Amino acid sequence: MRFPTEPGLFGSGGSTGRPGSVFGGQANRSEHTLYDCEVDGDIPDDLDGAFYRVGPDPQYPKPKGLEHDIAFDGEGHASMFRIQNSHVDYLSRWVKNERWQRQHKARKSLYGVYRNPYTDDPSVRGKFRGTQNTQVWYHNGRILAMKEDTLPAALDPHTLETLDGNYKFDGKLKSQTFTAHPKNDSQTGNLLAFGYEATGLGTTDISVFEIDKKGKTIWQAMVKAPYCSEIHDYAITEKHIIFLVYPLAYLGEELMKKGGVHWGWDSTRDTYLGVMRRGGDGKDIQWLKGPQTMCTHTMGCWTDGDMVYVDMDGGDANQFPFFPSPNPNDRFDPVKATGRVRRFSMDASKKTVRPFDMKVMYGQYSGGLARQDDRYHTVPYRYGFMIGGGPGGGGWLRFDHQTGKVNTFNPGPDSSLSEMCFVPRRKGAPEGDGYLVGICSRAKENGRSDLLIVDAQHMEDGAVATIKLPYRAAPQVHGFWVPGDQLPPVKA
Amino acid sequence: MRFPTEPGLFGSGGSTGRPGSVFGGQANRSEHTLYDCEVDGDIPDDLDGAFYRVGPDPQYPKPKGLEHDIAFDGEGHASMFRIQNSHVDYLSRWVKNERWQRQHKARKSLYGVYRNPYTDDPSVRGKFRGTQNTQVWYHNGRILAMKEDTLPAALDPHTLETLDGNYKFDGKLKSQTFTAHPKNDSQTGNLLAFGYEATGLGTTDISVFEIDKKGKTIWQAMVKAPYCSEIHDYAITEKHIIFLVYPLAYLGEELMKKGGVHWGWDSTRDTYLGVMRRGGDGKDIQWLKGPQTMCTHTMGCWTDGDMVYVDMDGGDANQFPFFPSPNPNDRFDPVKATGRVRRFSMDASKKTVRPFDMKVMYGQYSGGLARQDDRYHTVPYRYGFMIGGGPGGGGWLRFDHQTGKVNTFNPGPDSSLSEMCFVPRRKGAPEGDGYLVGICSRAKENGRSDLLIVDAQHMEDGAVATIKLPYRAAPQVHGFWVPGDQLPPVKA
Repeated sequence: MRFPTEPGLFGSGGSTGRPGSVFGGQANRSEHTLYDCEVDGDIPDDLDGAFYRVGPDPQYPKPKGLEHDIAFDGEGHASMFRIQNSHVDYLSRWVKNERWQRQHKARKSLYGVYRNPYTDDPSVRGKFRGTQNTQVWYHNGRILAMKEDTLPAALDPHTLETLDGNYKFDGKLKSQTFTAHPKNDSQTGNLLAFGYEATGLGTTDISVFEIDKKGKTIWQAMVKAPYCSEIHDYAITEKHIIFLVYPLAYLGEELMKKGGVHWGWDSTRDTYLGVMRRGGDGKDIQWLKGPQTMCTHTMGCWTDGDMVYVDMDGGDANQFPFFPSPNPNDRFDPVKATGRVRRFSMDASKKTVRPFDMKVMYGQYSGGLARQDDRYHTVPYRYGFMIGGGPGGGGWLRFDHQTGKVNTFNPGPDSSLSEMCFVPRRKGAPEGDGYLVGICSRAKENGRSDLLIVDAQHMEDGAVATIKLPYRAAPQVHGFWVPGDQLPPVKA
Repeated sequence: MRFPTEPGLFGSGGSTGRPGSVFGGQANRSEHTLYDCEVDGDIPDDLDGAFYRVGPDPQYPKPKGLEHDIAFDGEGHASMFRIQNSHVDYLSRWVKNERWQRQHKARKSLYGVYRNPYTDDPSVRGKFRGTQNTQVWYHNGRILAMKEDTLPAALDPHTLETLDGNYKFDGKLKSQTFTAHPKNDSQTGNLLAFGYEATGLGTTDISVFEIDKKGKTIWQAMVKAPYCSEIHDYAITEKHIIFLVYPLAYLGEELMKKGGVHWGWDSTRDTYLGVMRRGGDGKDIQWLKGPQTMCTHTMGCWTDGDMVYVDMDGGDANQFPFFPSPNPNDRFDPVKATGRVRRFSMDASKKTVRPFDMKVMYGQYSGGLARQDDRYHTVPYRYGFMIGGGPGGGGWLRFDHQTGKVNTFNPGPDSSLSEMCFVPRRKGAPEGDGYLVGICSRAKENGRSDLLIVDAQHMEDGAVATIKLPYRAAPQVHGFWVPGDQLPPVKA
């Protein structure tokens, strides 16, 4: 069993290759249990909760002819740092869904390339092929591991063992898919989510729904997108739901049957913002055209009267060079791909149908993986976070929309950061008063990882605590913090 | 929670420090599960079995005043490479005995220094304090994790979960201790073992016994040593049992009560070989004096008429600088400490009571951790193995006692080897026809480990297969190979 060594191939270099980012396709593969991590500095006494992460991790190398598969197709590998009484336990476990189980038994890859079922081994044709490798979320006593092309997996929040590899909530959802970027309603704590390609491969149906804290589907609607595109994240305000449709488009079944890639950047297509009321039947959705962009993550959003505002990070064109273009003129352009904070605004009143507006903010700062203080989803907010760089150097950035000031946490030389998560200092702490937690990898120590805790109000002072792993942490696209008092009791 | 950084202290540098040997006291601490390791080269198709390992791993740093504790006091951490159908799974688990459980719950070290119960925290005084960190063995469906100062722990051979942290076999053993170097009888497969300090701390009682394949104690005898010393290994021939007593001696209860170290090198004491018949009451034991030496591991041994031969590796004096000496003249001498293959011979007939003879063999080669083809325990043998160096460079050495030839496997630059294990090429393969399996750590990759499979008959050709871990393997003193057909079925 070996992975290819040629760069750019699926799992290239395997788990023992040179340290690289998840986007480099590096494998990790090993499950870990580390009781009581070693710590430099001081973990705040009253910090109690768990930082969950998930990322794609190649379970097996792809067979000959499919080695070009992209890193996004790695099987889900979840991990957790449980912090309590200034002690930290670290755990990582595969998302053991049907795909993982089948491959584990066969001791080889059976599923073909990223989101193309036509490339699967005949033995698994039509079987569940999800990877649930993009984001984790806490809901109703379970950790949900999610990827936008299937329903989530449900994991035990203490052991990360897979409870259900294809979790259907109350069985009432009409969607076959579930975004990796659900939201919690700031007021009710309900789970707000959607699925695109909701009724099958390449379909333009978007299912949007609300699930209460006990897992009951309390609202759902089905709307039509202008065309089938990657809708990675979305936005929910107190009144509205907003989808961004950009020209990373599904290129058709014919191409898929030839073994092609699910997405291609087709700049001949328009960029849209779809806005609809929450709680309705979806018939009110308006698709407003606007300037071309590709934005993958929502920083924050709110409704002010009829006006709806959404902040996202993104570029002027395709940000993923590994998705080819059907048009010769659409070559990947790293300058256009550069991610910046963009504020979208639109009039949801239907009084005047006009294009949405897009304004680049903090033009000197670039990056991605925007986050906020999650308690301020759906409502006006002050602080946004991103990983990137600017005049203050590279690292985690905090944007203060009130003052326009940007603060930077820089991890030092030969160190690279993953996406951070904001953790309130205590229950009821004001917005932005708390910590940033996230992984830092050390290139000169074979990619060894530390979990850093940084005071979000004193980012330039460096980490208040460094939680040390003896190896590379499991891979991560996104991470999620759950306060300790929300977790169920540990079973004896 | 942090480990000291000053070299020489218990767990110095923790698990994230610079790569070092187990004797450097480095911690590892994390449990791992890695399905289907990546492999360079080709694992022989018919190689089927499991390579088990164990070593000391500091569960927690010692409290102030006890940080001088030695690496040998690290808690047992067991690991396994399961090789079958050219696939390899890697697993590591703590030996979760009472000591581990108590410290795990307290989230700190409760037990004091190496084999000195007077240094324990009052909350655990008189409680089981074993670490079972030295060697693993397969017996009666269980993996035994062993250290010479307590009974073994019994682990599940497939999961390494601790089944019994203080395993008493059939409850009939009179010994409170159990060597880390039992033997299997070449003919019967029975387990042959002994315990020194068998009736309590500092006692000179040696219990020696035989346990059948079903765990039944079928013979035991109690003998007296000339004084209480470290008897790390021993020798069993078809007829005789042989103990080497060297001047690494117990220095008395008074010193222990002051927090002292269990052993000290006292060259005023004599060196003895004790020889006794198997199966008797032990009253026939003869203690023959001979030249001073310290030998920790048996390579091979046999009886020829009245003559008994034992090959061990060892030096002319103390090999463990961390055990101090009560005499000012006994300073640690690295030249005298150098390990070489030594052949002891003695006349067991009692016709003429004369000193034992000790002959250094292969004088140009030095090293330690002697092994052999385990099927030839108790009987005349041809091939011995050791880790060390000589004219052919450093690495794993094979000594051919028939031709006097020495072969060397050298792992290349920036690489350090652990003890290897000999694996027969197939059931019934001639002596020495098979593989050497063992761990190699790569200094320039943060100590990342590979399991190497080397053809024992073509050692200079390099490894036939390199099984790659993405991190440092769990620590090891010794390792043990179990053929697949001896393992119990995996529970569904």
